[in-house]
Amino acid sequence: MEFKPLSGREFPRYSAIKTFFRLPHLLPSDPEFAQADIALFGIPFDGGVSYRPGTRFAPSRVREASSLGRGFHLDRGQNVFAKWKVVDAGDCPTVPIEATQTYAQIEKYVANLLTQNKKFVACGGDHSVTLPILRALHKKLGRKLALVHFDAHLDTYPAAWGIEVHHGSFARHAIEEGLVDPKQMVQIGIRGPFAGADDLDFVKKHRIRVFTIDDVREGTLADFLKKLPVFGEIPTYLSFDVDGLDPVYAPGTGTPVIGGLTSYEAQRILRALQIQNLVGGDVVEISPPYDHADLTSLVGVDVMFEILSLFR
Amino acid sequence: MEFKPLSGREFPRYSAIKTFFRLPHLLPSDPEFAQADIALFGIPFDGGVSYRPGTRFAPSRVREASSLGRGFHLDRGQNVFAKWKVVDAGDCPTVPIEATQTYAQIEKYVANLLTQNKKFVACGGDHSVTLPILRALHKKLGRKLALVHFDAHLDTYPAAWGIEVHHGSFARHAIEEGLVDPKQMVQIGIRGPFAGADDLDFVKKHRIRVFTIDDVREGTLADFLKKLPVFGEIPTYLSFDVDGLDPVYAPGTGTPVIGGLTSYEAQRILRALQIQNLVGGDVVEISPPYDHADLTSLVGVDVMFEILSLFR
Amino acid sequence: MEFKPLSGREFPRYSAIKTFFRLPHLLPSDPEFAQADIALFGIPFDGGVSYRPGTRFAPSRVREASSLGRGFHLDRGQNVFAKWKVVDAGDCPTVPIEATQTYAQIEKYVANLLTQNKKFVACGGDHSVTLPILRALHKKLGRKLALVHFDAHLDTYPAAWGIEVHHGSFARHAIEEGLVDPKQMVQIGIRGPFAGADDLDFVKKHRIRVFTIDDVREGTLADFLKKLPVFGEIPTYLSFDVDGLDPVYAPGTGTPVIGGLTSYEAQRILRALQIQNLVGGDVVEISPPYDHADLTSLVGVDVMFEILSLFR
Amino acid sequence: MEFKPLSGREFPRYSAIKTFFRLPHLLPSDPEFAQADIALFGIPFDGGVSYRPGTRFAPSRVREASSLGRGFHLDRGQNVFAKWKVVDAGDCPTVPIEATQTYAQIEKYVANLLTQNKKFVACGGDHSVTLPILRALHKKLGRKLALVHFDAHLDTYPAAWGIEVHHGSFARHAIEEGLVDPKQMVQIGIRGPFAGADDLDFVKKHRIRVFTIDDVREGTLADFLKKLPVFGEIPTYLSFDVDGLDPVYAPGTGTPVIGGLTSYEAQRILRALQIQNLVGGDVVEISPPYDHADLTSLVGVDVMFEILSLFR
Amino acid sequence: MEFKPLSGREFPRYSAIKTFFRLPHLLPSDPEFAQADIALFGIPFDGGVSYRPGTRFAPSRVREASSLGRGFHLDRGQNVFAKWKVVDAGDCPTVPIEATQTYAQIEKYVANLLTQNKKFVACGGDHSVTLPILRALHKKLGRKLALVHFDAHLDTYPAAWGIEVHHGSFARHAIEEGLVDPKQMVQIGIRGPFAGADDLDFVKKHRIRVFTIDDVREGTLADFLKKLPVFGEIPTYLSFDVDGLDPVYAPGTGTPVIGGLTSYEAQRILRALQIQNLVGGDVVEISPPYDHADLTSLVGVDVMFEILSLFR
Amino acid sequence: MEFKPLSGREFPRYSAIKTFFRLPHLLPSDPEFAQADIALFGIPFDGGVSYRPGTRFAPSRVREASSLGRGFHLDRGQNVFAKWKVVDAGDCPTVPIEATQTYAQIEKYVANLLTQNKKFVACGGDHSVTLPILRALHKKLGRKLALVHFDAHLDTYPAAWGIEVHHGSFARHAIEEGLVDPKQMVQIGIRGPFAGADDLDFVKKHRIRVFTIDDVREGTLADFLKKLPVFGEIPTYLSFDVDGLDPVYAPGTGTPVIGGLTSYEAQRILRALQIQNLVGGDVVEISPPYDHADLTSLVGVDVMFEILSLFR
Repeated sequence: MEFKPLSGREFPRYSAIKTFFRLPHLLPSDPEFAQADIALFGIPFDGGVSYRPGTRFAPSRVREASSLGRGFHLDRGQNVFAKWKVVDAGDCPTVPIEATQTYAQIEKYVANLLTQNKKFVACGGDHSVTLPILRALHKKLGRKLALVHFDAHLDTYPAAWGIEVHHGSFARHAIEEGLVDPKQMVQIGIRGPFAGADDLDFVKKHRIRVFTIDDVREGTLADFLKKLPVFGEIPTYLSFDVDGLDPVYAPGTGTPVIGGLTSYEAQRILRALQIQNLVGGDVVEISPPYDHADLTSLVGVDVMFEILSLFR
Repeated sequence: MEFKPLSGREFPRYSAIKTFFRLPHLLPSDPEFAQADIALFGIPFDGGVSYRPGTRFAPSRVREASSLGRGFHLDRGQNVFAKWKVVDAGDCPTVPIEATQTYAQIEKYVANLLTQNKKFVACGGDHSVTLPILRALHKKLGRKLALVHFDAHLDTYPAAWGIEVHHGSFARHAIEEGLVDPKQMVQIGIRGPFAGADDLDFVKKHRIRVFTIDDVREGTLADFLKKLPVFGEIPTYLSFDVDGLDPVYAPGTGTPVIGGLTSYEAQRILRALQIQNLVGGDVVEISPPYDHADLTSLVGVDVMFEILSLFR
Repeated sequence: MEFKPLSGREFPRYSAIKTFFRLPHLLPSDPEFAQADIALFGIPFDGGVSYRPGTRFAPSRVREASSLGRGFHLDRGQNVFAKWKVVDAGDCPTVPIEATQTYAQIEKYVANLLTQNKKFVACGGDHSVTLPILRALHKKLGRKLALVHFDAHLDTYPAAWGIEVHHGSFARHAIEEGLVDPKQMVQIGIRGPFAGADDLDFVKKHRIRVFTIDDVREGTLADFLKKLPVFGEIPTYLSFDVDGLDPVYAPGTGTPVIGGLTSYEAQRILRALQIQNLVGGDVVEISPPYDHADLTSLVGVDVMFEILSLFR
Repeated sequence: MEFKPLSGREFPRYSAIKTFFRLPHLLPSDPEFAQADIALFGIPFDGGVSYRPGTRFAPSRVREASSLGRGFHLDRGQNVFAKWKVVDAGDCPTVPIEATQTYAQIEKYVANLLTQNKKFVACGGDHSVTLPILRALHKKLGRKLALVHFDAHLDTYPAAWGIEVHHGSFARHAIEEGLVDPKQMVQIGIRGPFAGADDLDFVKKHRIRVFTIDDVREGTLADFLKKLPVFGEIPTYLSFDVDGLDPVYAPGTGTPVIGGLTSYEAQRILRALQIQNLVGGDVVEISPPYDHADLTSLVGVDVMFEILSLFR
Repeated sequence: MEFKPLSGREFPRYSAIKTFFRLPHLLPSDPEFAQADIALFGIPFDGGVSYRPGTRFAPSRVREASSLGRGFHLDRGQNVFAKWKVVDAGDCPTVPIEATQTYAQIEKYVANLLTQNKKFVACGGDHSVTLPILRALHKKLGRKLALVHFDAHLDTYPAAWGIEVHHGSFARHAIEEGLVDPKQMVQIGIRGPFAGADDLDFVKKHRIRVFTIDDVREGTLADFLKKLPVFGEIPTYLSFDVDGLDPVYAPGTGTPVIGGLTSYEAQRILRALQIQNLVGGDVVEISPPYDHADLTSLVGVDVMFEILSLFR
Repeated sequence: MEFKPLSGREFPRYSAIKTFFRLPHLLPSDPEFAQADIALFGIPFDGGVSYRPGTRFAPSRVREASSLGRGFHLDRGQNVFAKWKVVDAGDCPTVPIEATQTYAQIEKYVANLLTQNKKFVACGGDHSVTLPILRALHKKLGRKLALVHFDAHLDTYPAAWGIEVHHGSFARHAIEEGLVDPKQMVQIGIRGPFAGADDLDFVKKHRIRVFTIDDVREGTLADFLKKLPVFGEIPTYLSFDVDGLDPVYAPGTGTPVIGGLTSYEAQRILRALQIQNLVGGDVVEISPPYDHADLTSLVGVDVMFEILSLFR
């Protein structure tokens, strides 16, 4: 089996069954799946959102938008689909109306990928889906992870309505459950307004490194890129919430906050990251019902591409 | 306090704080609430939907669209806001990410209205919200209800993912929990395709009266109206799922099925209903993110108006 | 000069400068204008609307949508652009932010057309623009007109905010100013809810013939068509407010009312009208910002075509 | 291999790789393809359109919308996916910018299906794609076909810009090339305005049976259904242009004409057709960029389902 | 009474009656209104616009979008709703079809607020509404004001159609009527093209300080912030026309001009302003019918928040 | 004849027949056309696109959006419509479904303009239309041209489906046919990902100067402007593909690539160009069906204005 995107010459890019980057579709249970290096998969779920829903439709729309995707990274001078055998593993099973089952299914699904020694990039889903992914990684690796986290929000908020896990609490849980080492964690794109001054208590207490949008734009972009931490042999995960971008670049999202990153800034930061041991990543919070001209899905495609390009 | 819609002469219809029909807003805990006859309220929830979400935004958009509403019913020759003291009671508390708490809150909220001897019209929310309403009514009234149910779907489907209550199972639960008398229940607008022949087993077994769209259109509309059952002293509830309408009349909904009712047919059926003891009603499954030019919300407004006009 | 639509063979229908039906554009001041029989023109104005604005953009969008228009009327077996010399006279000058000047300009513009012995079809504009048109016609003809009026609303409402003329009062003024003979006036598509029972007082008092939507649908459509009045030698005007249609057929309008005419019903009624002396007509209340896929503009195009086909 | 739609219980309907009706995807070159009875496939092409393009995206959007599809036909009392082994064969190869190659590819693709003894339903594409399908059928079957043709337009128009085949000429070519027997051809939904009286010459000359929208609505729908011709052992093809529907039911199309069929009428006509030997069918002219809330795609899904249900 | 935003814990942010920032709604005539420090109110009016209308719907949409608003300003380290008692005072009465009455009502409404010693932030409305606000302020304060004015346009244009006040002339009137001291006035975001060279004559003659977009971007943003004038004890008003932003950040506006400010730049400028005696402010020219995903309304919310944060 | 934009004072900007910048419309065959200096014209064509179509509607929408255009360039201090006699020459004839004829017609159309000694700015159309323009220029001028090319893509791609000319190959043909001197060619806005490393071979081999988005943003914008090449007496053409901009600034385009130019950057680059002998220019790849709030059309208008301002 060739792990190559379907050629646009036989099937123009608007045609054929839609998979991520027009790659072959193989379920993890498929025998040929064993040959793949990296699995792309969707987690269609919005059961953890507090405002606009719709992220359940993200994997489907991102697949469609990824028809325009290409594999050769101009900056890195390499074709990611030549370097790695990448496959679309389909969607993780989910339950539209129940979060607990869904998180269990995600954890199980990722555990299976890890057992098969796959690296992966997930397309959420709301940000709560990152937690079971981290749980599976932590369980498998037996150690805390480093985390690169793009977001407008800290996602360290307390339980709401008595429910611990929601799309604004994954980062707190990741720390409190011991999945992530807060000193090896960086948050990029954070901005206010906040509900209160105490929103920052958690990150301060745990000494999480926070780059607000003002930090990013304090000097030139090149200046900022030099400030990015370097991640060594520690297994590192990258989670990209599209609301880290300005709503103009990601109109299709659930809890937009103005004054965010441009997609160019995000690209440059993603390219500048030095991560020795990236084990997986995700792009989350894309809500197609609120999108226009697939702007947000197109960003999602590119984030998946940049994460793919980060694997070593 | 005057229970009258805000005049468009001081505040044009696009202005002022948005309430249903520009009526006064009073919380059930408000002392003046005691004077009201009928409460309109929202149940912003979409935690029971299996496909497109978004009904959580329905109460807000229907309130806005209801700015164009008027009170004088041309057919009945009466002004519903002169006949009854109607109030916007705001929204029932809900939890966006957890159904069980939400259903409990709805039941409690409706129980409180009933304790205050209010009739009511609710604006959902997905169709699962009708179940806790019926529970509250049944508990308060101590007897089974009659049910007039507009829908494309039977809503008698089994549990999904091990979860009993969802937007396709409220009617089954209403029967199985003994809340509704199936012989005093009518479903209007039903149409296929179905998942299987056994989808009809439940309604057949319980002898629920089903009017498919073909039944409605077998002869003239006037012919059909004569076939509608008459509801006597039995407390009767009316639940209007907008997907009973053709998707053209209700594009903003979660599980559209083509070939449905026109809004005119729905109006005529609603007007022809003979219900001696209507205790409440709802309009559900309006999903504003998929709506255009507020078409679906405008239908929702009218259904609320027609239900209001049915109270005696 | 040939008064023929531009051929799609040289310029495909999406191309070339947009005029109504791809007809030649001649200003009334143009010498060649004298040769024309019928002038189509726009009245871009929404200064009389009480809810959604946007009708100022109707002439422009209807011109674009009319690119798909054809001239041969299947029912009548004649090509209207072969029978008459029809021209796009451009837009009547208007003032976006002031109604009084605008009404004066409309009256003057129409008076000029009449002086040049043109028949015409206007594309509004909100419904207030019909009043100055009727004023010009009445002044020129020196007698009362008959009026065929499609609408959801009676448009006989009183002054609002101390202002006599607005989009809901043109019909009252047409009667009170003696421009129209109420006994030679018919309203089609009227429906509630109304603000109050007294909304009907004016039409009752003046014995205006009102066909509600229920009247239209009492029997078969053929039955209804037989009830339409016949207009003899009296100069007759036809005003078509697109909100007479159901909002599904005319989503792009300012004050939608559900339960209205289908566009097919409107076509059939327009075709069934027997008007010996039609002097002009208009289609009004198309609001492109609220339209989708040009649905409402396409109806506007067809109404203009049917009015054109009514001239004798 | 089971030829069953993917269950919504493991993968909710918004999830998983999108195929028509969630059926298995097998390319015609796949060994297991031999087991299938009926192939569904897309023809993503809009190179033959004269006004709005976009039909190239129809197969992709119709696949997505078909996630809501079910298999049990309420009227016929059978599950089409139990009766037949149906498969999504993917898309026919096309060339976005060149029609001749594309038509050759379509003809070849369909010929291959026929060689494998498959029946099929195609999802266009603009209406020009029907011609190469008919060519392949005629070549394989060695005789003229009967044709059931839903459309607003006759599609018997002459060459345009010197080009014979376009989306308005397929029916003329089907007759002139001897692919279809005009006496065994019926057109449903036709309506004006036309470019000229001679538009009808071709159908008159060839005695094609034309049911205009007025014919359909002359009496009751039941009356009309009785007038439908019966097709015996002659191999019969069914082509459904969504612009046969009113633009309200099919906003996403290229050359909308107001005053068309409702989707309910179309369903009832499709169900009433008596076709002994249906060999294939298509739904064409769905243009997603002009669609809203997938209204047109949902109709496309249902037309595919009704055609599937017509196979014997 | 507590002047606090409604908690999202009882009523999720998409629920409950919509007020600015979920604050309590009190009319100025309400006795409890006396306790408030700052009033937020809407001026739903678009009677002064020359191109796209729709600003009449801004207060309603901005209220809805403000549900996502929070109170703690990350940069300033303070919660504006803890510092001040802020209230939603509803909408100022307006007349949709008449400007003169509306301006009188605005002036009277603001005069009443001032008499009650309230500071305020208004949500327009087109830019003409700023003039009566300034008139009320000037009358009450008895002296000229300083003015900070964000805009793409100078708004110093002459009367149009003989009408003095429109959305492009408020600034000229503010100077000519002696309401504002031109030497204490700054315009930010100005850009061409202009109608002519003389468009700049007025600002040059009156020595109004104009920062074009090129001025803002001459060096780094930090460089520019240092050039902002400082406003001392002079009563200062801030008017923010969203078309000062690039249309990408404010698609929902009436007269967009490309090449404008980003929302981040606007935020940073607003935060850098040193205004000792801010008496009020507004955000104007938000036109929801042209907005997408509430992008423009979200900016409007943030501008209101930043103005609130400027009060001392 | 006065070559001035129609005044907004008689006809507000939303009114009157739509021409580019409200300029007079004269066909090249019109006798008065001889007086014009510069012709603006549309090339409504999308037969060369590989993904999203729709550019056939660009001339029409750009004309409408240009109603907001003004003539005085703030930076240059001159009114372009006072300096030059500019006219809207209408659309070049095209064939919607056939590329070869269309390219011949474009070449002939431009040749005619050149014979009449006109300079021109074209509004495409997909990018393939630039090739026949260059052919006409080359033939007329008898020498190679310089080319300033804004784009995300190199447009030097090989034939696809055996077809040489498509929207991704115009630049390769311009070089290979000897129309353009590659050493006098600059490409601005280029960015990846690419299909492969060899995508760059052509531009490297021909030593075309390529400014990627990273090149543009390496230092300050002022730094970059200094790097722009200067074009002397060589006849120079400027082609602006809107996908050179970020999709946020040009959502309405066929093959969007994230991470592109802002419209402000494009304006500044266009203003900084030093071109002694500009002979024509175009703006291409605007696809209105995918646009929102006319964002992309507004950019198209401005690009046309900046090109007009570059003529000497």
